[in-house]
Amino acid sequence: MDNLLIIGGSDAGISAALRAREVAPSCSVTVMLADDYPNYSICGLPFFLSGEIPDWRALAHRTREELLRQGIRLLPDHKATAVRPEEKIVVVSSSSGGKTLSYDRLILATGAASRKPGHIKGLDTPGVFFLRWMADSFAIAQHIERNTPTSALIIGNGYIGMEMADALTRRGLAVTLVGHSQHVLKTVDPTLGRLVLAELERNSVRVASGVDVEEIGVRDGRLMAIGSGGFQAQVDLVLVATGAEPEVGLAKSGKVPLGYGGAIKVNRRMETGVPGIFAAGDCVETWHRLLEKSLYLPLGTTAHKQGRIAGENALGGRKEYAGTLGTQVLKLFDLAIARTGLNDAEARLEGFSPLTVETECWDHKNYYPGAHRLHIRVTGDRTTGYLLGAQIIGHWQTGVAKRIDVFATAIFNRMKVEEVEQLDLSYTPPLSNPWDPVQMSAEAWCRTAYQ
Amino acid sequence: MDNLLIIGGSDAGISAALRAREVAPSCSVTVMLADDYPNYSICGLPFFLSGEIPDWRALAHRTREELLRQGIRLLPDHKATAVRPEEKIVVVSSSSGGKTLSYDRLILATGAASRKPGHIKGLDTPGVFFLRWMADSFAIAQHIERNTPTSALIIGNGYIGMEMADALTRRGLAVTLVGHSQHVLKTVDPTLGRLVLAELERNSVRVASGVDVEEIGVRDGRLMAIGSGGFQAQVDLVLVATGAEPEVGLAKSGKVPLGYGGAIKVNRRMETGVPGIFAAGDCVETWHRLLEKSLYLPLGTTAHKQGRIAGENALGGRKEYAGTLGTQVLKLFDLAIARTGLNDAEARLEGFSPLTVETECWDHKNYYPGAHRLHIRVTGDRTTGYLLGAQIIGHWQTGVAKRIDVFATAIFNRMKVEEVEQLDLSYTPPLSNPWDPVQMSAEAWCRTAYQ
Repeated sequence: MDNLLIIGGSDAGISAALRAREVAPSCSVTVMLADDYPNYSICGLPFFLSGEIPDWRALAHRTREELLRQGIRLLPDHKATAVRPEEKIVVVSSSSGGKTLSYDRLILATGAASRKPGHIKGLDTPGVFFLRWMADSFAIAQHIERNTPTSALIIGNGYIGMEMADALTRRGLAVTLVGHSQHVLKTVDPTLGRLVLAELERNSVRVASGVDVEEIGVRDGRLMAIGSGGFQAQVDLVLVATGAEPEVGLAKSGKVPLGYGGAIKVNRRMETGVPGIFAAGDCVETWHRLLEKSLYLPLGTTAHKQGRIAGENALGGRKEYAGTLGTQVLKLFDLAIARTGLNDAEARLEGFSPLTVETECWDHKNYYPGAHRLHIRVTGDRTTGYLLGAQIIGHWQTGVAKRIDVFATAIFNRMKVEEVEQLDLSYTPPLSNPWDPVQMSAEAWCRTAYQ
Repeated sequence: MDNLLIIGGSDAGISAALRAREVAPSCSVTVMLADDYPNYSICGLPFFLSGEIPDWRALAHRTREELLRQGIRLLPDHKATAVRPEEKIVVVSSSSGGKTLSYDRLILATGAASRKPGHIKGLDTPGVFFLRWMADSFAIAQHIERNTPTSALIIGNGYIGMEMADALTRRGLAVTLVGHSQHVLKTVDPTLGRLVLAELERNSVRVASGVDVEEIGVRDGRLMAIGSGGFQAQVDLVLVATGAEPEVGLAKSGKVPLGYGGAIKVNRRMETGVPGIFAAGDCVETWHRLLEKSLYLPLGTTAHKQGRIAGENALGGRKEYAGTLGTQVLKLFDLAIARTGLNDAEARLEGFSPLTVETECWDHKNYYPGAHRLHIRVTGDRTTGYLLGAQIIGHWQTGVAKRIDVFATAIFNRMKVEEVEQLDLSYTPPLSNPWDPVQMSAEAWCRTAYQ
């Protein structure tokens, strides 16, 4: 009988465990996790901190009892410190002391860690936080409750920075958002970035772009951040949200080869370079379906999919991961901001001949109440006509997320932009137009490309 | 120089005219229409009658001036009475007398007419209405304004019946909905039909299914409808919404061959059987992408697409219509009800080996406020694994319409159900789950099919 050991109790690890029990109900599945929070939705942390979700316990995808009922053995508060593939054991330190655990098959789902930018001094000053795990979230919540801060500085103008600017503003704090890049949310193109900036400013977030924070210190009992170009901010709380890096210490201890961006190298079956060891989620490189090569793109959706495949294959399956398109959506105040595939600059770097066309249109027939404007950018290849990517911004209740999913489904199937026009999409005046915005934007692209 | 004549000024006709002017700016394009309302959104009529759209003028997709600016010549109040292909002329009766118009190429976009069920006596009683064109809509609106009816009977429990039950209820009338079929909205399966019925009843619509109305008369100054099984209803307004049939009188006059369901026979280039004559929209049979044969499926989205192709090909293009999947969505009070592809019964009739699995899940992570339940039915082929169809019901602001579009895009690309699970769809807790409901329902199908 197989003895499957999984290290990591977040999205990838638990997905692997559940799938393993599904395909081989007789196998022994153990999930070891460093903290005491198996299967929590870390994507939900900003919404807990904003106050929209009053009780953090609601963030559990499944309760501990549900996991146990699936026949999964849980080892919380167990930190794996080394893997020894020759002996098929993992060395563990837990609150009750050190030990080793043996395995037949091992899945590494160790996730990612917050990146700690080396050039910023004073990151260990009390009141400076990161956000990745439940414990980070509790620390921030406790700081807010105990010290009732009235202002916050967020360092990093990417996804987490945006979500936390929204969250802390809702929580009543005056938020300053500072970032290295010249435009906020550089995962979308600058013309859309300007709409994101406007939404931040409309909600009283002070935004400073193109600034490197250099030092965080304490002045007059408050935190003082100093950065390039004379940037200064005196606040009561600092959140550093400058990205994530794969957690690979354990992989290294077992000489598991690394790949793109220092993440664990895996093939599409989620096998690492060491026989018997699989890996999935934010600690691995990820196959990009369009580029047909691996990148580092840590996302919750991907972690779930890869985890499931690792769980199945660790018990003898031969499933292949279909690949990511980097599909993402973010809610920021009243906006949803979504993208899939490649933008113009990325496509050019990869050797395509991209053309990107921006369209603005109503989300539904504007004679019906409540219509909003959508801004859509479609990127296609001039030479082949293939759809490469799309970006959409609009009110969060106007189908932005599911419209990006139509694009994602089209790219997944390698459609040409002109074929997107021909899709048979649904229409009723309160919900769309006879040509859905997805199709209007594809049509605008074709008009530009083929005239 | 080409002289293109288009008969019909609704979705297909105007789409054809606009496309013709786009591809050949030097050609002469004339659109002849029987009424005085070119390019009106007849899909919007229920929302005008409900009062949600106060001014009917807002229903114009484009104003008359915009059409003229595109170089389109409009002939309103011109009713074509015969086509003579040998002479390339159309015989016309207009308010200013009869005449003939010649053409080089002709597009028939004559639309559909309300079906008048022959077995119901008294359909010409004052107070009995149909709903298809602007004039129908004005007649109903006038009746409501002049006579302030307090109750209405709707005959027909399909799409238009549903929309009008909603509209007249909003308008303050007590509505009875009666239909021949045993379940309301038989375009969705009975388990979903029950949810539709519950929504109607929750909004105080009295529903009688499996009833044939036999006679409409007048009693005590009000309308009295009598039907099978002792059905009786005394009301102030009757709307007959028992479907549409292709308007083909003109086609017949020119010996243009008919096809499926008596609609004009066309190939995928929208050519009829008579050289030089094209046809598009609700008057033609429609190529079904999955079945690879033609059916009669009149829909606004299809009319726009076919019109555009007819317009391009009438001027020498060779474009092919990609085909319909019958994708539809309907808003009924707080619900959206959508479908695409085939349901179980239809798939079986067509020789597939269908399996249909129903799933119920949250539209987004239920820890975030405002989550609603979605009911999704996925139909796939047991033998091949291909996705054949999907149906979704849920709150109208939960992405039902765009989620059916993801399914429609998947079917358009002939995906297997298990591939749908692997799509890279977007996720943020306020808008979805790590596995979108589309994928959860695909996964449930696979679990049933492959266990």
